[in-house]
Order: sequence, then structure tokens, then C-alpha cells
Amino acid sequence: MAQNIYDNPEFHAGYSTLGRQVHGLDGAAEWPEMRALLPEVSGARVLDLGCGFGWFARWAAERGAHSVLGVDVSSKMLERAQEDTEAASVRYQQLDLDEFVPASSSFDVAFSSLAFHYVRDLDRLLSATAGSLAAGGALVFSVEHPIYSAPSTQAFETSQAGDRVWPLDNYLAEGERVTSWFVDGVVKRHRTVATYVNAVINAGFVLDRMVEFGASTEQAQAHPERADDVHRPWFLLLKATRSGAAR
Amino acid sequence: MAQNIYDNPEFHAGYSTLGRQVHGLDGAAEWPEMRALLPEVSGARVLDLGCGFGWFARWAAERGAHSVLGVDVSSKMLERAQEDTEAASVRYQQLDLDEFVPASSSFDVAFSSLAFHYVRDLDRLLSATAGSLAAGGALVFSVEHPIYSAPSTQAFETSQAGDRVWPLDNYLAEGERVTSWFVDGVVKRHRTVATYVNAVINAGFVLDRMVEFGASTEQAQAHPERADDVHRPWFLLLKATRSGAAR
Repeated sequence: MAQNIYDNPEFHAGYSTLGRQVHGLDGAAEWPEMRALLPEVSGARVLDLGCGFGWFARWAAERGAHSVLGVDVSSKMLERAQEDTEAASVRYQQLDLDEFVPASSSFDVAFSSLAFHYVRDLDRLLSATAGSLAAGGALVFSVEHPIYSAPSTQAFETSQAGDRVWPLDNYLAEGERVTSWFVDGVVKRHRTVATYVNAVINAGFVLDRMVEFGASTEQAQAHPERADDVHRPWFLLLKATRSGAAR
Repeated sequence: MAQNIYDNPEFHAGYSTLGRQVHGLDGAAEWPEMRALLPEVSGARVLDLGCGFGWFARWAAERGAHSVLGVDVSSKMLERAQEDTEAASVRYQQLDLDEFVPASSSFDVAFSSLAFHYVRDLDRLLSATAGSLAAGGALVFSVEHPIYSAPSTQAFETSQAGDRVWPLDNYLAEGERVTSWFVDGVVKRHRTVATYVNAVINAGFVLDRMVEFGASTEQAQAHPERADDVHRPWFLLLKATRSGAAR
């Protein structure tokens, strides 16, 4: 199973202070681009893989989703999600994404924000997710971008030529990355862009769109606090549609 | 139009010494992975965009392609391609890929090796290529990987932590990159992985597979001369199929 760092009290305390946990979806820089990838959720049966505090589940419910199932490994996060949720159309379930086996054709939209890089067996989860979607159903997910997750040192530095650079190494060396994030020993899994793309396709999806979330030259100039994001993407976002038949 | 550096005598002299130009396809490290992406060419009408000395055109002809059209902007390269080609099924044509307008549904397989990063208008070329393929026709192409083409300094260095790193910057700043490669002033165009993927999809293709060509940990250990290739991919390879209808 994947590491459940979210129930570690020290991690949980730090994580809860993040803008996206205090302010919800609007506190997440990439949310406008995630939202743009989403199909209409009104009337849809929605699945949120790694739902955390339930921000997206409530957003979907407010927009008329027929039903929303939010799943997460963290009981602490689900407790607060449940407290904060009034809509009767939303259910939460505690489980490990590495063991999730959803019912066949039971959803129209599958969503996941920054959870798949914790999953041990991505192929298994994507196949299960494809099977849980009706034909034509959509998958929209984000992960840490592989350029972001790859390096031995995940921090900008000044290069020998005097440029501000992201010291990339081990991009093609897939596997665990142990980082310090509120606490030491947070385990994520580094995969290449190609591995994500091919896993989506192999699971029976047609890839519709990719977003490498960071900042264009124009965005970096307009928002100096985002200047670093022109140098390396932060998140990888994919939108895919379940094809009629597995390929 | 794209820069035609290949007719520069000094560039041409240097370029002609590359392993892949002396030894052909087997001199290109990525050829086994390109070949694995290709559909059966026997009986197919094949298009090679940026055919150079004609190595792939002859390979396809030898494997029973119905016909092969190799196009390239460089008259020097096409002269040698023609000299080296005996098969009557192969034709060559000099033209700029930024101006190429192939006939509708006239090909079954479109191939391109390391040429699209010179093209000014990728969307136009991919739409034209999609239009030139019969429904179900395949596109297989390679470009310099965006991680390779992005940085201000395209060379490994030792990071502050003492690691061998690829000093990545400006990944999301798309546009021209002027490099020194046999001669100064070689102009290539840097695009992100997402831009390539979305351009392929927008042109009416279904993406089938992505390869980020470099070296896995195992390959790097087995081939010490390729150790650097575990740190950053060298080429991006994509295989796509023309869908029945433009999306």
C-alpha cells in the first residue's frame, strides 16, 4: 500500500496550513487549468481519488453532480471532509488507492488532484478507474511534474554560467523519492511523462489534453512571484476519455 | 520558412561525419525504439518529412513499401539521397516543411526523424500531415526532447550538491534557440512536451505511445558511455494514428 503520511500529526498540522487547504480550490494555483479540463459535472456520477478535505467533492455537488464519491487513505482528512460537507449527494470512503476496486461503469467523471504520485501500482489503478467509468467518461488528474519530482536536490540554484536553474538529474530513473515536506521521510514515486501517458493509453483511455503547469514567459513577467515557474513545470495535468473498447 | 542550415558547407561537412550519417539507421541510438513504433510498411505509401540522406526511405523501400516520398529542404542532402537510392519506388522532393501541402489521403505512414524542431508552424504541418494520411494511417516522429532543447546552457555540470546535473531553465519559455552545432547560429524551436502532444491531438490524431529516449538506470549501468542519458532524455518520440474524424 502507499504511505499514509497524511495521518501523521506533524505532517497533518503543516499540510493544513497550505493555501489550498485553507482557501480550497481557489487557493490552488493550478485549479483554473484543472477546471478547464473538466467536463460538465451537472448530473454526473463523480469519483474523487484522493479527495483530502473534500473541496472538490463539494464543488461538484454544488454544481449539480448526481453523486460524488470521495475516497482517501487518511482518516483525519476524511473526518474533516465529512464535517465540512452538507450535501447529501456526497459520500466519503476510507481506502488505499492501491487497493481500490470500484464497481464497473459506476461513474461518469473521475478526478484526482496530486494523489497518483503516491500510488505504487499506477497501471492497476488506471485500469480499475477506466473500468469504473461509463464509455465516454472522463478522467482528469494532476501529479507533481516528473521534472519537479526527479532531481536529487529539488531546489533552484545558480548554475556555473550564472543562470537560475533547476538541477535536473535522474529524470529517467523511475522509483521512490524520499523528500522532506513538513516532516522527513515523505515517500513519493517518480515516473516520467511518458510513463503517465502510456499508462493512461494502456488502461483504455484516449488522451485529450496535457497541461504542464508552470508559467509562460508572459505570466512570469506579469507575476514576479511566479518567475521560477517558467524554468520548470510544477504539475502535470492530463485529461482523457474512456474509449469504447480497451486497446 | 525554416532555416536551411543543412546546405551550409561547413555544417554539411560536420554533419556528414555523425554516426547516423555514416552508418545510417543503425548508427542512430534511438532507431530501435523508432522502429518499434512503426507499423508494417510493406505495401504502404510512406512519407518521410525531412528525409536527409534517404536512409529511412531506402529502409522502407527494402521492406516492400508501395511507394516512398522523401522531402527535405536541403538540396545537398537530396543530391546524395538520390545518388544512394536505386529503388524505383522512392522519390525525393525538395521543399520547406513550413510550406509542404501534400495531397489528401495520399499516404499510409508518415515518418519524421529530428526535423520538426526546425519547423516554424507545427500546427500547420501536423494538420497537413493528418490530411495527407488515409484514416487509420500512422504518424511516427522524433524531435529533440524539450528538456534537452530548453536550457540556456545545453551541457552537464556539477551542481552545488556535487551531483552531475542538467541545468534546466526556461522549459516553459517556448521559441527559438540559437545553438552552436558544427557552426554558430543553428536555429531550432523549443516547444514543451505538452505543446507537441496537444498539437498532435488537435491535428486529428489519436496518440498511441510516447517514448522519452535516454537511458534507464539499468541501461546506464550496462553502458557507461550512456550514463548521462539517465539524467535527461535526449529525444521525444511519438506514435499517433489518424482518427476517422478531426476532433
